[in-house]
Amino acid sequence: METIIRSKTQEVIVAPDKPTVIIGERINPTGKKLLAESLVKRDMSRVRKLAESQLANGATVLDVNVGAAGVNEVEVLPMAVQAVMEITDVPLCLDSANTDALRAALQVYKGKALINSVNGEEKKLAAILPLVKEFGAAVIGLAMDDAGIPASADGRVAAAAKIVQRAEALGIPRADILIDCLALSVCSDSTAALTTLESIRRVRAELGVNMTLGASNISFGLPDRDAINEAFLAMGIAAGVNAPIVNPDTSRRIILISDLLLGRDEFAMNYMCYFREQKDKTPAA
Amino acid sequence: METIIRSKTQEVIVAPDKPTVIIGERINPTGKKLLAESLVKRDMSRVRKLAESQLANGATVLDVNVGAAGVNEVEVLPMAVQAVMEITDVPLCLDSANTDALRAALQVYKGKALINSVNGEEKKLAAILPLVKEFGAAVIGLAMDDAGIPASADGRVAAAAKIVQRAEALGIPRADILIDCLALSVCSDSTAALTTLESIRRVRAELGVNMTLGASNISFGLPDRDAINEAFLAMGIAAGVNAPIVNPDTSRRIILISDLLLGRDEFAMNYMCYFREQKDKTPAA
Repeated sequence: METIIRSKTQEVIVAPDKPTVIIGERINPTGKKLLAESLVKRDMSRVRKLAESQLANGATVLDVNVGAAGVNEVEVLPMAVQAVMEITDVPLCLDSANTDALRAALQVYKGKALINSVNGEEKKLAAILPLVKEFGAAVIGLAMDDAGIPASADGRVAAAAKIVQRAEALGIPRADILIDCLALSVCSDSTAALTTLESIRRVRAELGVNMTLGASNISFGLPDRDAINEAFLAMGIAAGVNAPIVNPDTSRRIILISDLLLGRDEFAMNYMCYFREQKDKTPAA
Repeated sequence: METIIRSKTQEVIVAPDKPTVIIGERINPTGKKLLAESLVKRDMSRVRKLAESQLANGATVLDVNVGAAGVNEVEVLPMAVQAVMEITDVPLCLDSANTDALRAALQVYKGKALINSVNGEEKKLAAILPLVKEFGAAVIGLAMDDAGIPASADGRVAAAAKIVQRAEALGIPRADILIDCLALSVCSDSTAALTTLESIRRVRAELGVNMTLGASNISFGLPDRDAINEAFLAMGIAAGVNAPIVNPDTSRRIILISDLLLGRDEFAMNYMCYFREQKDKTPAA
């Protein structure tokens, strides 16, 4: 199954046999005070810088989120989308909890966007799926419903299946849905990662859809988080995730290695290119 | 299923729900010129040092291999085993291609040893399985046969099944067999890791036995090998490997993280202890 996302001139294909697509997560003011301040002032210079640095580190889709106190998302999300489109033609992932902001961003976006996100809550399904249909977009579906994030893999697969069914009933093909099986911290529940991995395997087997994953929650509360996130990402990709939302600066290497190990990098070309690039960045001894 | 290995006083249990057992690989002269030279002189000081450093890095079983040019393994393997038993009570993995050397080492070893290794070749089965039976040992079974290392997962699972059947026919319980699904370099064959991972999942599902893995071949010929080996180990452990043969100095962290992610480290206790230990080793700024 192929999920296709497009800009005006570029097409990104998410599919099980293709290299993993890196969705860059960094245009998001959560925890970034300076970005939040610049968004309040409607200054897009930081947004552009974050776009450039993520592209340099291998992102092929960029998530754009402007949600912060004092930011009118309905006005600022389209501005940010416009700013990113001015400097790059990679497809974008429009990220907001505000349906009106998503609509406004979809109106200025050129191409087939990825909408972030719908979930199995009745209210969300009713708000987001018609928008996906109207704009011919793709959408991220979080494996949760009105009862919250299910504790079991059974519950998450059921929530994912509900999203797929409701989308198909509206005429949205399941190829246009990327399911996120959701990661919770292993610090508070030692079975948290297992549940996510089992959900990923089952969504791949039972629903056949492509999958994203916001992996970094897994290590919340623990030291040396990057090392845990990388290992979880490798396991998640091996289980079926093929378009994770990550910080490309820290996650690109493990994604390239995962593709290498999963038979998606013939002659290790992508890995070797990356390795040489990194070497060229290091000053000679 | 539980695989039990014993020294005079210690017992190590390999089982799917228990933390991954680290078999230290470093007492092996391949590629270690100074160790090879000292073994020729029957000087056991380096063997003891390698035992100590691996124990300090979390090994709970030590592999002992003395195979090098100019070394009489039948005499030197028991000497090395004796030397290691003098400084530690962890169970040992007796590693030789020479059946007489294994017999000599089994005669001095106190406990239930792990023999490294048998495979599906008729000659090997006939030489090693009676030894396993006679000494009540456990044994590593390499998933290959008289035709070599099978290219397909089907072939590796069949080779593993053959070893299990032959062992059971002699009265050796399958719990005493650790299968190694074998890793070949992804540099020359981009499907190499996939084949190993699929074999691991199928051996777990179809034979139910515990599994070891010598993971480092996977990265042969590629740069930054440790990073590739770590990711492959994480995927291998997620697929069912529970007693890998590794260099504990470089692989302990990824093994602890894998256990943390696979629900075998409640309250992240083992991971946190490791993290504090590493921090204590780092001089304060």
